[in-house]
Amino acid sequence: MTRTITTADLDDLAAGAAVLGTGGGGDPHIGRLLASAAVVAHGPVELCPLEELPDDAAVLHVAMMGAPTVMVEKLPSAEQVSMAVEALSGYLGQRVTHIACAEAGGVNSLIPVVAAAQLGLPLVDADGMGRAFPELQMVLPTLYGARATPMSIADEKGNKVVLDAVDNHWAERLARSATVDMGCSTMIALYAMTGAQARESLVPGTLSLCAELGALARKARAEHADPVEAVTRRLGGRRLFTGKVTDVERRTTTGFARGTARLAGMDGDAGRELVLRFQNEYLVAELDGEVRGTVPDLICTLDRESGEAITTEALRFGQRVSVILAPCDPRWHSAEGLALAGPRYFGYDVDPVGVGR
Amino acid sequence: MTRTITTADLDDLAAGAAVLGTGGGGDPHIGRLLASAAVVAHGPVELCPLEELPDDAAVLHVAMMGAPTVMVEKLPSAEQVSMAVEALSGYLGQRVTHIACAEAGGVNSLIPVVAAAQLGLPLVDADGMGRAFPELQMVLPTLYGARATPMSIADEKGNKVVLDAVDNHWAERLARSATVDMGCSTMIALYAMTGAQARESLVPGTLSLCAELGALARKARAEHADPVEAVTRRLGGRRLFTGKVTDVERRTTTGFARGTARLAGMDGDAGRELVLRFQNEYLVAELDGEVRGTVPDLICTLDRESGEAITTEALRFGQRVSVILAPCDPRWHSAEGLALAGPRYFGYDVDPVGVGR
Repeated sequence: MTRTITTADLDDLAAGAAVLGTGGGGDPHIGRLLASAAVVAHGPVELCPLEELPDDAAVLHVAMMGAPTVMVEKLPSAEQVSMAVEALSGYLGQRVTHIACAEAGGVNSLIPVVAAAQLGLPLVDADGMGRAFPELQMVLPTLYGARATPMSIADEKGNKVVLDAVDNHWAERLARSATVDMGCSTMIALYAMTGAQARESLVPGTLSLCAELGALARKARAEHADPVEAVTRRLGGRRLFTGKVTDVERRTTTGFARGTARLAGMDGDAGRELVLRFQNEYLVAELDGEVRGTVPDLICTLDRESGEAITTEALRFGQRVSVILAPCDPRWHSAEGLALAGPRYFGYDVDPVGVGR
Repeated sequence: MTRTITTADLDDLAAGAAVLGTGGGGDPHIGRLLASAAVVAHGPVELCPLEELPDDAAVLHVAMMGAPTVMVEKLPSAEQVSMAVEALSGYLGQRVTHIACAEAGGVNSLIPVVAAAQLGLPLVDADGMGRAFPELQMVLPTLYGARATPMSIADEKGNKVVLDAVDNHWAERLARSATVDMGCSTMIALYAMTGAQARESLVPGTLSLCAELGALARKARAEHADPVEAVTRRLGGRRLFTGKVTDVERRTTTGFARGTARLAGMDGDAGRELVLRFQNEYLVAELDGEVRGTVPDLICTLDRESGEAITTEALRFGQRVSVILAPCDPRWHSAEGLALAGPRYFGYDVDPVGVGR
């Protein structure tokens, strides 16, 4: 995958996106199926490097919104994607020139591929976070003053909503309620911006990085090397813990998949216990009662053998996993970034733990 | 008030509208204040008889949505009205030619006066129900296949939502959630329709009837006659009960003002008890345990001396009231009408009680 996304790229892309998704962003299997159908039907997607975006490009981000626990049962339809884009471009009275990715994740990095294929538009090689976060105001463009709205929401029944909110927190609140009503899983189009705004605020190269991460793990498996090690090295991160899932407490409330997982140490971690707390994404990791990893840095749970990312809704008793920590985009560690997506925003009274700094 | 609404007409209009509001539709004092400010600022409003509407008129209905208990504390701003109309006409890409009233009520018959004054448009002398109902699909146009959406919602903070729902029940559901988020009281524009559709489906003459009812009660007071009797006679109804409010149980849930009131009989009703059940509007009246009045017919609670309507949120211990029953538009007694707004829709397992039939 260099300048074009074909069906041959989708396995790696989805697998790598799920790593950056830090437990959220949707199931990579679903993302791959949706993108594959769209690319087969409409042809390959042109990938536009972020730095090549013209100043006056009209960029629109597309994503799924809702609880990943619901997305795996109520599969999205491909028509929802174009419905959302058309509802918003109609309201804006503007032709869209480029599709962009709001967050990295097994579904949310692939939905933009679906939209770009359906609409015949180039896809920007970037994303709004460099990872996944549960709420829609949690993108770097918010730090640059970009507005999430006007945004559109479409469900599989045909209901459409256009929001024009006074700020991005209100956009999240109104969109979340609509999404809960619509069955906890919707397709959204948002953060309409110019090419100049996108170049300034997005994380460059995210889709390429996803494909690279997926390929690294795949090659390590083929060479009987350690795929977890390959992924961790590429992210500049470190392995925090290896162990077996002993308990998952999960509830789908206020439109999110929330919960706590407990893991008993194996290998060098025998006798230790890791607790993971999540809201769609893994937010906090506590090793023997001590906070060792927090948002905004990445907490990724990977299958210990295959290196495949395990999303929070797929976490099950008995899985043997490695939990790795990796640094996020440094802009998230600014005071404004931490106010938007640091541990205290999510209700954890702890300082953010930096990784690799 | 014949073909023009001036400030001199607003007292009677609001007072009469509150009678048809059957406890809901908002506080007439607030409606009068809002309309008075708009008419003073922008001039009188032209009233267009329903039968004179041209076939190709572009008619839009405006109203407040939410819990009347909240409306009396969080007063609407006049700007919200034009915000809602502009958001919707922008989405529709259509110029509005006439404003119409969705429901009769102390606020909801006056908000269209505000919109018509602000926008310099004629106001149709009609409404969508001939009374007030708590949910937005409950208008006669729904029986004729008219769509509530595209509709817009505006709050006092500046948030705007445009909904495009698959049916009018979905419109209600999505609009109610947005309204709850926005603080339980919003301004909405909806049921965009042609003049031909409006002529077929609206109740003609509602605003004139409101003004007439208000004037009848006022004149009866001036002449030391019985205003309750004057209003009841004009509506072709009958007095069910006269008594004192002994208990009001009230809760604001899921965006509605719900509750039960108990009244102890006076005058000829001494020794009897009336129970009123409400959801914004008075829905069921039980006299000594027997259901004697139900939606869709009108259950109006009037001050025993002045004949002024008492809305459900204004009902208080000790008030001396007369409860009257009056017939609704006969279309509400069709099978489709009862399915939409009969007692069973609201969860009361009783047959509708007809009045004056």
